[in-house]
Amino acid sequence: MTAIDLAREAAELTEFWSQRVLAEANGNLFKVAKGIGSTNWHRHDDQDETFLLLSGRLRIRLRTGDVELRPGDLYVVPRGTQHCPVADEEARFLLIGPAITSTAAGGKPSWSAEGGGGPSST
Amino acid sequence: MTAIDLAREAAELTEFWSQRVLAEANGNLFKVAKGIGSTNWHRHDDQDETFLLLSGRLRIRLRTGDVELRPGDLYVVPRGTQHCPVADEEARFLLIGPAITSTAAGGKPSWSAEGGGGPSST
Repeated sequence: MTAIDLAREAAELTEFWSQRVLAEANGNLFKVAKGIGSTNWHRHDDQDETFLLLSGRLRIRLRTGDVELRPGDLYVVPRGTQHCPVADEEARFLLIGPAITSTAAGGKPSWSAEGGGGPSST
Repeated sequence: MTAIDLAREAAELTEFWSQRVLAEANGNLFKVAKGIGSTNWHRHDDQDETFLLLSGRLRIRLRTGDVELRPGDLYVVPRGTQHCPVADEEARFLLIGPAITSTAAGGKPSWSAEGGGGPSST
């Protein structure tokens, strides 16, 4: 039995703003992702979304203000809350929630796929 | 709005093997704790228990072998699984699960309270 090395798992991701499930516990998934640029504004009505930053910097824009995350910081975006994560440099993070949210409805930008071009300026 | 600095929260703990709740999402609590020595062998029949090591080293003894955690490592102890966390040096960690487990039934050793003496040798 071995533990899961979150940094190593995140380093192996090839696509921005896509989630890889590493483990499940109590109905929640532990997912790593990396981001650069930003997603589209979106919200999840079915689940709270917890961010735990592993490396880089991540700013979570909310309609009421921004939250700045440094490595080792945790923030819960409550369900139904519009948000827009922004990474000026590449950020790697753990996400915790009951389902994958890296879909178009989940704010995933069209350029995020490997070889899909760079981040948009919007 | 500010993010939660997990290392700073863990640094403020005064009691070993006690959990401080920092946030809740999707029915799960995010709790910091610190440990040295070991708990008693125990299991949680009602919940999976996820460990994410923040600092130090943590060995989770299982009846089937040991799991070694370094900072940034994650491990899920499935519900009903007997386990015994061991920290040869002080370890600080995040725990995720639907309820507090730092009780006597949860393996908490009697010496763990502040001013309650040191870790036992057992």
